[in-house]
Amino acid sequence: MSHTAELIAVGTELLLGNIANTNAQTISQSLSALGINVFWHTVVGDNPDRLREVLNIARRRADIIITTGGLGPTYDDLTKQTISAAFGKPLVLHPEIVEDIRRFYESALHVPMPGNNVRQAEFPEGCTIFDNPAGTAPGCAFEADGVHVLMLPGPPNEMEPMLRRHVEPYLRRLSQEVIVSHDIMTFGMGESSVEELLRERMEHMENPTLATYAKPSEVRLRATAKAPTMAKAEAMLSPVVKEVTNLLGDIVYGVDVSGLPEACMQMLKAKKLTFAAAESCTGGMVAERITALPGASQVYRGGVVSYWTSVKGAVLGVPNEILDTFGAVSEECARAMAERVRVITGADLGVSVTGVAGPDPDERGVPVGIVYIGLSAADGTFCRKMDSGRRRRDRIQGLAANHAFDIIRRYLSGLPI
Amino acid sequence: MSHTAELIAVGTELLLGNIANTNAQTISQSLSALGINVFWHTVVGDNPDRLREVLNIARRRADIIITTGGLGPTYDDLTKQTISAAFGKPLVLHPEIVEDIRRFYESALHVPMPGNNVRQAEFPEGCTIFDNPAGTAPGCAFEADGVHVLMLPGPPNEMEPMLRRHVEPYLRRLSQEVIVSHDIMTFGMGESSVEELLRERMEHMENPTLATYAKPSEVRLRATAKAPTMAKAEAMLSPVVKEVTNLLGDIVYGVDVSGLPEACMQMLKAKKLTFAAAESCTGGMVAERITALPGASQVYRGGVVSYWTSVKGAVLGVPNEILDTFGAVSEECARAMAERVRVITGADLGVSVTGVAGPDPDERGVPVGIVYIGLSAADGTFCRKMDSGRRRRDRIQGLAANHAFDIIRRYLSGLPI
Repeated sequence: MSHTAELIAVGTELLLGNIANTNAQTISQSLSALGINVFWHTVVGDNPDRLREVLNIARRRADIIITTGGLGPTYDDLTKQTISAAFGKPLVLHPEIVEDIRRFYESALHVPMPGNNVRQAEFPEGCTIFDNPAGTAPGCAFEADGVHVLMLPGPPNEMEPMLRRHVEPYLRRLSQEVIVSHDIMTFGMGESSVEELLRERMEHMENPTLATYAKPSEVRLRATAKAPTMAKAEAMLSPVVKEVTNLLGDIVYGVDVSGLPEACMQMLKAKKLTFAAAESCTGGMVAERITALPGASQVYRGGVVSYWTSVKGAVLGVPNEILDTFGAVSEECARAMAERVRVITGADLGVSVTGVAGPDPDERGVPVGIVYIGLSAADGTFCRKMDSGRRRRDRIQGLAANHAFDIIRRYLSGLPI
Repeated sequence: MSHTAELIAVGTELLLGNIANTNAQTISQSLSALGINVFWHTVVGDNPDRLREVLNIARRRADIIITTGGLGPTYDDLTKQTISAAFGKPLVLHPEIVEDIRRFYESALHVPMPGNNVRQAEFPEGCTIFDNPAGTAPGCAFEADGVHVLMLPGPPNEMEPMLRRHVEPYLRRLSQEVIVSHDIMTFGMGESSVEELLRERMEHMENPTLATYAKPSEVRLRATAKAPTMAKAEAMLSPVVKEVTNLLGDIVYGVDVSGLPEACMQMLKAKKLTFAAAESCTGGMVAERITALPGASQVYRGGVVSYWTSVKGAVLGVPNEILDTFGAVSEECARAMAERVRVITGADLGVSVTGVAGPDPDERGVPVGIVYIGLSAADGTFCRKMDSGRRRRDRIQGLAANHAFDIIRRYLSGLPI
């Protein structure tokens, strides 16, 4: 039997637009991977009447209800009280949970537990309690009238570990089949062209399925199979991943990697190489993206953010003749920046980005959206020109940073730059 | 009369968790500023039966319904068809909109318009059409049975300009009062301590109201007033903002600024000063945050990402004795990095960050979470030590980058570092 879920987020801060409901996205991904259909997301404020009304709608149309938020210690936090009343389950105090919360306060927050936190140790009679090492609000789950109700805390840093550790195993026991997905990551072709290439292949697919998702400047393809076991699902997926990778050719930069920075990190680690970056219009974004990954120090030495032209000369050592003759936004400057950052850091590869992110053209009249990406290695120096057209500043910067990682990836793979 | 709104997002990609419903956040912020209560967000898939059911619930409990998504040219895109049928409005073809879409294809996409795009030029009889310069799907609005229904495209880069240009003016005409908010931004104190300081003051407030919002490592206070005119709302807010700023003292770094980078940029511009950054564990995040702002080149010259210790020596010129004696993560190294980056870039101020973001301690055993932040200026060099404890890598990096901007702000304001 296939299950139908509704996610209910409780919190006035969501309705005021102070935060986005990212919990719904995170939980939906988990449920989708477990083969559970999510048909509705609902957000409601800290208001018991409206929460009760939303619950009554949900229990008629879904057999799994997962709530987030409203488990805090204050009187605004009414999720447990309202749900317990709606399903006719009295709240029961768990003294051992009071002790857990008291310990959390004393060891992690270094203050005594306020009295109203005792409310967080009350749970619907007969439920399963999910502990919360990251905060004071445990979650819980019960079944009543054929509906599974799960209540999780609102802060994503508390919700996510509970989802992985408790909710996924709880739900896995309800489901008879597994769903497995693999992500084929591409850079360098628009979503419509990728779909065009795969249209014929995709039209006749039912299980596995293949779907495209466009992110700014890259396209992710997700192949998904349903089967009674993990091994059977993998056996169904493996030929599809191979076929799609062959069809798309060298725009595929990896399978099941988070993005171009991680793909580059893996390749550089395997070849025991390091790189450095000289950045102008991306202003440190290449550095920031690689150092966001744990273990980046194995492959990334550092670099220079040469935002002012004078820094390109004084810190990087780009010759003044190049800056005077061709300007800071030029192929010649990009090549020199890549060479210089490689030399001064001692890295195996130097990558560079110089261009115009806008809102205004540069002082020589180079228009917004023109960016040069350079790469220097022991066997030569390469350059790519990108013309993204007039877009938003953050889009141009993000696309240019992706090009910098792509030039590294193509060089290491022996592909044309 | 005060209005009650429900936001309905249509799209299976939201229910699969491929994207978050950021449109709901954006629209909620707009509606909150217009004094319209948003009581529900709902997400439903590309399924006409479930969309109809969701609409029937919404029209009973809200008098403004705003949908996003499902206005595309394919047969999955069924928002207009389903809503028109539910409200008994026939769809009417607008030939002038067909021409607009054809022109968009030819000039922006350089391909002829596919035949099925004609569907995007059909609208419920008698509605107001909202043009869409960023895409092919116009939006629309109509009133029926006392309910205002507005349909907007799903891609945020199309939805947002339409919201500002068409939806806000449309809704402003429905509302008799304005809501004005000011954000008081603070850094350096936890949310509960800020609330403790303001508790007595906040408890007795009804209009204006004061609310706290915690972001990682900073707290925003929003003061909000409702009044018949903008000027009256501002007159009510001005004493509250002054009083709160006085109560909180020097942890307030600005009012209505986006964050510490923007506050620093404004102060540096006013004093006609520039800065440079030498970053180790933040890996370019300080650079990336300042260069995300248009106009950053007036105040930021560039800097060095000295991820490897050798780069601190070779590129920045930190003396080897300092690195050997005290290590790369030390007050002495932070001071030398700040001084050196100021000298080699010619900036007025040099700021530095060196620490351990994890997951592992550094080679000398400095634990995860210890970060030194340095500042060098013509009149001296300063240093601050941050101990954030064992947290997630991105949290430590983000907090350390905020400290770097905070040390600049406090120096420029003549406050103790």
